[in-house]
Amino acid sequence: MFQIFNTPTHPEDGPPRLALLRERLALAGLDGFLVPRTDMYRGEYVAPHDERLAWLTGFTGSAGQCVVLRDAAGVFVDGRYRVQVKSQIAPDHFTPLDWPAIQPADWIAGQLPDGGTIGFDPRLHTTDEIEELREKGEKFRITYCETENFVDLIWQDQPPPPLGAVFVHPLELAGEPHAAKRAALAERLRCKGARAAVLTLPDSIAWLFNIRGSDVPRNPVPQAFAILHDTGAADLFCAPAKLSDMVRAHLGDEVACHPTGEFCAALKALQGPVLLDKPSAPVWVEECLTGAEPVLASDPCILPKARKNAAEIAGMEAAHLRDGAAMCRFLCWLDAEAPTGALTEIDVVTRLEEERRRDPLLRDISFDTIAGSGPNGAIVHYRVTTDTNRRIAPGDLLLVDSGGQYADGTTDITRTIATGPVTAEQTAAFTRVLKGMIAISTIRWPGGLAGRDLDSLARAPLWRAGQDYDHGTGHGVGAYLSVHEGPQRLSRLSEVPLEPGMILSNEPGYYREGAFGIRIENLIRVVEAPPLPGADNRAMLAFATLTRVPIDRRLIDLSLLDAGERAWLDTYHAETRHRIFPLLSGDAAVWLETVTRPL
Amino acid sequence: MFQIFNTPTHPEDGPPRLALLRERLALAGLDGFLVPRTDMYRGEYVAPHDERLAWLTGFTGSAGQCVVLRDAAGVFVDGRYRVQVKSQIAPDHFTPLDWPAIQPADWIAGQLPDGGTIGFDPRLHTTDEIEELREKGEKFRITYCETENFVDLIWQDQPPPPLGAVFVHPLELAGEPHAAKRAALAERLRCKGARAAVLTLPDSIAWLFNIRGSDVPRNPVPQAFAILHDTGAADLFCAPAKLSDMVRAHLGDEVACHPTGEFCAALKALQGPVLLDKPSAPVWVEECLTGAEPVLASDPCILPKARKNAAEIAGMEAAHLRDGAAMCRFLCWLDAEAPTGALTEIDVVTRLEEERRRDPLLRDISFDTIAGSGPNGAIVHYRVTTDTNRRIAPGDLLLVDSGGQYADGTTDITRTIATGPVTAEQTAAFTRVLKGMIAISTIRWPGGLAGRDLDSLARAPLWRAGQDYDHGTGHGVGAYLSVHEGPQRLSRLSEVPLEPGMILSNEPGYYREGAFGIRIENLIRVVEAPPLPGADNRAMLAFATLTRVPIDRRLIDLSLLDAGERAWLDTYHAETRHRIFPLLSGDAAVWLETVTRPL
Repeated sequence: MFQIFNTPTHPEDGPPRLALLRERLALAGLDGFLVPRTDMYRGEYVAPHDERLAWLTGFTGSAGQCVVLRDAAGVFVDGRYRVQVKSQIAPDHFTPLDWPAIQPADWIAGQLPDGGTIGFDPRLHTTDEIEELREKGEKFRITYCETENFVDLIWQDQPPPPLGAVFVHPLELAGEPHAAKRAALAERLRCKGARAAVLTLPDSIAWLFNIRGSDVPRNPVPQAFAILHDTGAADLFCAPAKLSDMVRAHLGDEVACHPTGEFCAALKALQGPVLLDKPSAPVWVEECLTGAEPVLASDPCILPKARKNAAEIAGMEAAHLRDGAAMCRFLCWLDAEAPTGALTEIDVVTRLEEERRRDPLLRDISFDTIAGSGPNGAIVHYRVTTDTNRRIAPGDLLLVDSGGQYADGTTDITRTIATGPVTAEQTAAFTRVLKGMIAISTIRWPGGLAGRDLDSLARAPLWRAGQDYDHGTGHGVGAYLSVHEGPQRLSRLSEVPLEPGMILSNEPGYYREGAFGIRIENLIRVVEAPPLPGADNRAMLAFATLTRVPIDRRLIDLSLLDAGERAWLDTYHAETRHRIFPLLSGDAAVWLETVTRPL
Repeated sequence: MFQIFNTPTHPEDGPPRLALLRERLALAGLDGFLVPRTDMYRGEYVAPHDERLAWLTGFTGSAGQCVVLRDAAGVFVDGRYRVQVKSQIAPDHFTPLDWPAIQPADWIAGQLPDGGTIGFDPRLHTTDEIEELREKGEKFRITYCETENFVDLIWQDQPPPPLGAVFVHPLELAGEPHAAKRAALAERLRCKGARAAVLTLPDSIAWLFNIRGSDVPRNPVPQAFAILHDTGAADLFCAPAKLSDMVRAHLGDEVACHPTGEFCAALKALQGPVLLDKPSAPVWVEECLTGAEPVLASDPCILPKARKNAAEIAGMEAAHLRDGAAMCRFLCWLDAEAPTGALTEIDVVTRLEEERRRDPLLRDISFDTIAGSGPNGAIVHYRVTTDTNRRIAPGDLLLVDSGGQYADGTTDITRTIATGPVTAEQTAAFTRVLKGMIAISTIRWPGGLAGRDLDSLARAPLWRAGQDYDHGTGHGVGAYLSVHEGPQRLSRLSEVPLEPGMILSNEPGYYREGAFGIRIENLIRVVEAPPLPGADNRAMLAFATLTRVPIDRRLIDLSLLDAGERAWLDTYHAETRHRIFPLLSGDAAVWLETVTRPL
């Protein structure tokens, strides 16, 4: 099993560690220290080595920060984690604080009326973050100083930094040799008058060099840094042990490999204009650029990585068909077992992972499966543990959000399943969510629009009923890379134009706190819209659907669907049957035929 | 009649005037001169005195600029006017240029390879415009200099500046005394640390002082400037002849009236931080602020003016009912007459204005009526003249976009009418436009969203058919003020959050060039959404419809409407019948009953 169900931390571990940390800070003459959840690579997942925030406070969310002062320790978390944080920390020693309503700089100023000195590890913060702290701290005589990492100093059994093997992402899946990618980006650097680009994001490096890694769970990226020169040559910085001879041969002569420790010296040797991705580059990277002029520009890999090429799309499609077959086997099993009332959420997660693991190309799950039954379905980021595990009563709605990391592609799918009789309120809400999901699936639009311009189409059926969901409609997805990938999103916050080849999730939802949750999610790909019959036919973009798994018709109130929506669902089910049936046998094949019949 | 149908300019008048202008420029040692369409007040309509661009070039569009050089004269127009400009100018003397694809600064640089000096009238350009020209001109050694207005020098029979009477906008319609408005804005000035605000927009001044004017056609605004002080006292600058004793009494002691010529001296006397609306303030206004620190901030009247109060809403509703009755009498007449094939577009415009003029509260039409039959309907800004007037053949679609300026409110309505048998293509397109219009009419949404976030809802039915329209979905509308009023819009360009009290148009369309045009337009008002039955009922905003005129059911393909859309239309027609029937008699009353029966 990739997924585990333990309770990873214990609130009572925090206070003695906090006391030890404060002793060290006092010795160093510091009034405080910042403990963010991030590592140097700023991904969604960190290695056990970098789980400093969880080790110190007990809080295991994917975003947050602890500010340790002499007399207070504030744990800043966003709306997703307000409930979770309370159960994970020792409340007499740590104070949960609502970020971004409460900003660390303001809270620190309130706690230290006479000023003070706060330490931070320059590898773990961006220049923007520190500049904001310093600007606000100035008038309160609060100074922020680069220091060593005091958590690392006291963490006796801290796991070492990961040494996960790097492996080659084959050309038939990548679609373009890394030399060609480097040459194309180098030309863009020359056009911009830049001598080099500094790359600190592991998924950019994985994409650029056609490699994958195994340093962190769920995301197949290598912890590494790189410098791309305007000649197309590059320097790659990572622990040498991670690079096999095969990988070194794949990288070739134009890509020089160096230990991570040499990165700063290499940055110091750079001259002239050098591109740096300001929102993600750590402070120490910018400080190492002593000879160059930093040009603040987006990491140049981000957009070409987002626009998947034909080989990447073919891989994603193949992975989605096999993943669809695994999901169908799982759903067939669930339909047979759930009515007994014997299943728990952990049983569901386990069975689903087993079905995926039958595929030899599965490398990992793409995130911990969310299997929320009844009221747990309304917790958007629910992850079952042995403490929260719930027996699924027939009639509970079950929300299952999961995905696989396959060698040829990344999947992410949510289905909400009826396990017994359902209420009219549930079918009405499910059907509204489905209408929004179909609205996105079927829309076409003139080029140039962003996710912000389409987001309301998914919400309108809920809005008309006074309902909504408090998350984006969709996120970008990588091709055997991060399941959350920018810059494209379907969200009121996203102003990046959608372009052919971009892959996104389409996942409206509805959550009734304490009762049930609904989400329906397919992955979709931006395409040039196929021409329509008719006179006035403008060039437009549209979405093609990647995910091929039936949608639970027991939850649909047919009277709320219009003819076009019914036609979409019938076509979707017919196509799903046509593509997935050959991959199934026995009960699952019979199940598929049944659940995909026309409405 | 307010509307006239003459051809206002003649291409052959331009060349001799251009020659005269060039003589004057040569004498002054200038290589060129800028002739924009704007006046000092930057409204959509200018007085005859300010029609310099039309007088010089023949082009009468509502936006544009002529750049006169020694050997070339470029007329910059946007997409709306590319066809019109060609028929209005002398092509051997003036060159039509596509703005914004071609920027004046770039074109000038191309025409003057050895540099040169261009004159401009500082009353007619904003600082932003001139800064952009100067920045681009610098490397080509092109200088932009403030000069007198050379068109005024040669325009022998230039009409004098208007002296339209200012009149009081009564408190029962304005809803708030101007002293209270001034006091509230003064408090906001003090909060911002500003000593005063400079007001150069006539509709802001009209709103703030509860006055209206008659200087320009269609918009009841006075040409005036004002300074609002942080005490709530104000100075108003306009021609004294425009202010009757009654108006002076209404303005009271706290509003000092001065001739326009004293505005600059009063600006010079200001000290400390002073708010200035950068996008609209002319260069000379900023230059007059010699003693103050200009603080670039939006005109403080814009947002409170956009959020209509209860009295303004009541006035708008009353005006819409009477305007609806006039429209119904007109449509009844049209249904009887159009099938004869004898009507022309001018007949239609004339009859509609006659119906509106029966209302004693009508002060003007709110813009020249657009009555486009057949292919003329596809010209979005069509305005019929005796040259273009077209006989309406039975079966032509007729698009009529019109409105009235009543003492209590401003209306703007478009209906598209069948005059005989219609094609399936026409009904399909009309029904898609209607679906988009209903989608906006029925949406509710969580507060904080802008027009950009809703625009796609109106377009989705067309997009799905590969169709679209090349204009915004809606514009803000004033309360007996400008029919185009910011900042709210339903447009992908609008990021201003929609707030209760804002009034907008809802006017999707479809245009088949050379064949027909369709547009359906109601005015709508942002309201707190009424609560819905059901468990999870979030606070949301919604639109209430102001316009009450039947929609032509002969153009609806019922098979394309869903149950909710049919219900909306039936309710809309029932409510329209209920509200308008008491205002009608005879044939029109019978007609209304017929056309508003349930689908």
